[in-house]
Amino acid sequence: MTLVVQKFGGTSVADADRMQAVAEHVARTRRSGDDVVVVVSAMGRTTDDLLHLAEQVSGVHPAREMDMLLTAGERMSMALLCMALAERGVPAASFTGSQAGIITDTLHRKARILEVKGDRLRAALAEGVVPVVAGFQGVSSTRDITTLGRGGSDVTAVALAAALGAARCEIYTDVSGVFSADPRVVPTARKLPRVSFEEMLEIAATGGRVLMLRSVEFARNHHVPLLVRSSFTWEPGTIVIEEDPSMEQPVVSAVTHDTSQAKITLSGVADRPGIAATLFRRLAERSVNVDMIVQNISHDGMTDISFTAPREDLAASREVAESMLGPLEAAEVITDEDVATVSLVGAGMKTHPGVTATMFETLAAEGINIEMISTSPIRISCMVRSDLAEKAVQALHRAFELDAA
Amino acid sequence: MTLVVQKFGGTSVADADRMQAVAEHVARTRRSGDDVVVVVSAMGRTTDDLLHLAEQVSGVHPAREMDMLLTAGERMSMALLCMALAERGVPAASFTGSQAGIITDTLHRKARILEVKGDRLRAALAEGVVPVVAGFQGVSSTRDITTLGRGGSDVTAVALAAALGAARCEIYTDVSGVFSADPRVVPTARKLPRVSFEEMLEIAATGGRVLMLRSVEFARNHHVPLLVRSSFTWEPGTIVIEEDPSMEQPVVSAVTHDTSQAKITLSGVADRPGIAATLFRRLAERSVNVDMIVQNISHDGMTDISFTAPREDLAASREVAESMLGPLEAAEVITDEDVATVSLVGAGMKTHPGVTATMFETLAAEGINIEMISTSPIRISCMVRSDLAEKAVQALHRAFELDAA
Repeated sequence: MTLVVQKFGGTSVADADRMQAVAEHVARTRRSGDDVVVVVSAMGRTTDDLLHLAEQVSGVHPAREMDMLLTAGERMSMALLCMALAERGVPAASFTGSQAGIITDTLHRKARILEVKGDRLRAALAEGVVPVVAGFQGVSSTRDITTLGRGGSDVTAVALAAALGAARCEIYTDVSGVFSADPRVVPTARKLPRVSFEEMLEIAATGGRVLMLRSVEFARNHHVPLLVRSSFTWEPGTIVIEEDPSMEQPVVSAVTHDTSQAKITLSGVADRPGIAATLFRRLAERSVNVDMIVQNISHDGMTDISFTAPREDLAASREVAESMLGPLEAAEVITDEDVATVSLVGAGMKTHPGVTATMFETLAAEGINIEMISTSPIRISCMVRSDLAEKAVQALHRAFELDAA
Repeated sequence: MTLVVQKFGGTSVADADRMQAVAEHVARTRRSGDDVVVVVSAMGRTTDDLLHLAEQVSGVHPAREMDMLLTAGERMSMALLCMALAERGVPAASFTGSQAGIITDTLHRKARILEVKGDRLRAALAEGVVPVVAGFQGVSSTRDITTLGRGGSDVTAVALAAALGAARCEIYTDVSGVFSADPRVVPTARKLPRVSFEEMLEIAATGGRVLMLRSVEFARNHHVPLLVRSSFTWEPGTIVIEEDPSMEQPVVSAVTHDTSQAKITLSGVADRPGIAATLFRRLAERSVNVDMIVQNISHDGMTDISFTAPREDLAASREVAESMLGPLEAAEVITDEDVATVSLVGAGMKTHPGVTATMFETLAAEGINIEMISTSPIRISCMVRSDLAEKAVQALHRAFELDAA
């Protein structure tokens, strides 16, 4: 008997029809002989509706109470899914994060999972009952309800798969897998039948929006194969697994882009030890997720430091950068929101040194200026003007012949 | 420092404005120097909306999952109220039934409270935090989420008041207290400043809809004074307390009516021991709440047994009655839904034997036929045709001079 965890996102359970389709699929999986643990998100726009209610009621939103409020969402969807399963003769029981034994730290609204107990889920499975678990939520070590932040339901699913020793974690969503580029930008983009965890991490980190970085990291660390599939078409999706060293890797698997970042430049920085360290320590203290960092050679003892951060962290980033201004440290802070990063990701890139040159030539041929560059062994990212990002993605997708056959 | 429990029903927290008014009132209570524990119901029509969702999703509704679904309602309202309190500088924390330590039996959808632990509420109070507790819900001895059935939030409030030793339990609703009759039927009905638990029990049992019988019983058994008030006008309400034997009681306090019952008659019943016992044992096994029972003298070894039960239990009642049919037991089952009971309630009635006569004369003068009669030391109930119930209430209210001064 194989155990699989199936996670259904908000669009997959958005209304009664979708909920019934999901129940049908879970029933089918059971009939095929597999054991199933289901993880569900809140239905469709429920979370947005709850946030709107909170805005209406109060201008103050204590994080503990926001978590209490938002966790009502999965509570509804899991109970409803259990009813739809019961109607199909599949015994099912819903479990809150707390009942499932998902223990987190005490950081409300973006808690981290410390431990998955899962005793009640194992007991349910042993009785032939399908456990339906609320995604996105847990209970803290001080017995308060917590939520796991963005992408939290995927993290729940992966954590349960790891804790229960599932053969794989299936993530059902409104797209049919991981593509060689965003199909809205590149209509000929190809669905990738399989990608390695390393590639998936880079894709997630550079703008691929199917999976959040955090759940991919969790899956890789716990060796949980991920399957990304559509709950609308149920067609074969993308499997995310350990890299198989015996196989030849495609040089480039995907072209990604990310327009959610902003660039902050601290110019006229005194080029002496400790200044960059102070800057990034202060950014870390404000929980700013710095992505790219570029510091070039200095002239006359002065240099410029540029970094990117999510646009929502721009205000905090600017404040930190401005705290560095002063005669002995830095002269000016410049921010720029009209930037995008365009990245190539591919496990085979490690052994093909020509990729960078081809990327730069392709962008140059399109007249697209590169403003910052960052690389990893299996990724190259270039910052460009945001209005040129889609043109860059399309050109690179063509240049590396990633179109569907 | 006095501790009060304040319970706000669904209409009291129906929208953002109502929620803010409630927060303002709780803040005011705190400023007056009292400690407060708040109990909330789900907002307005939330429960109906959730029931509708369940109907849409599935034709099968396992009780455990209905409880999981419905408890989302109070979760939202309590979190939102805590936010509104925070905005007013009142530290507050929400607690689910489970977190509040409300332990119930395992009967989903109409669980009974077995124990109230309340440790976390006491700890919150000790820290100056207002606990806001989800009404209507608890956690069973097998760690599943349960709901307490109709009127459950009032029961939660009374149980917490008893467990925490509160000075009183305030029930806020959309009416301003307990009236001498339903003001929609008798516009001149008078608000009663105080009623005894015994009177309140009779009023609740005979159609007064402000408080459910169950919470009044709980309050009486645990000596918790109840205050019923409007959360719309905040005017003084009705206090429900132990009868004060030193005071003269009004003969009649209220005229109530109840159109929610049906009458079932088993006619041609063999008049020998055990038949009535079998009938009512079987009704109890089907959880039918029998109210009035009338059996008259027999003729030729045959008698008729009539009883009333809530109309929603009519189908079950008829099935049970029909199970008694047979040559040795009973001849026929007759059901009647067009009935109503009209009752007089008053603690002073015990010592005033003329009340019954006045009641019957008043109804006779209006040409209203009495079909069944039942009495207690402080109540007389008559069954009449349902379309004559309001006329009967109005006539009795006049006859006993209950109009507002």
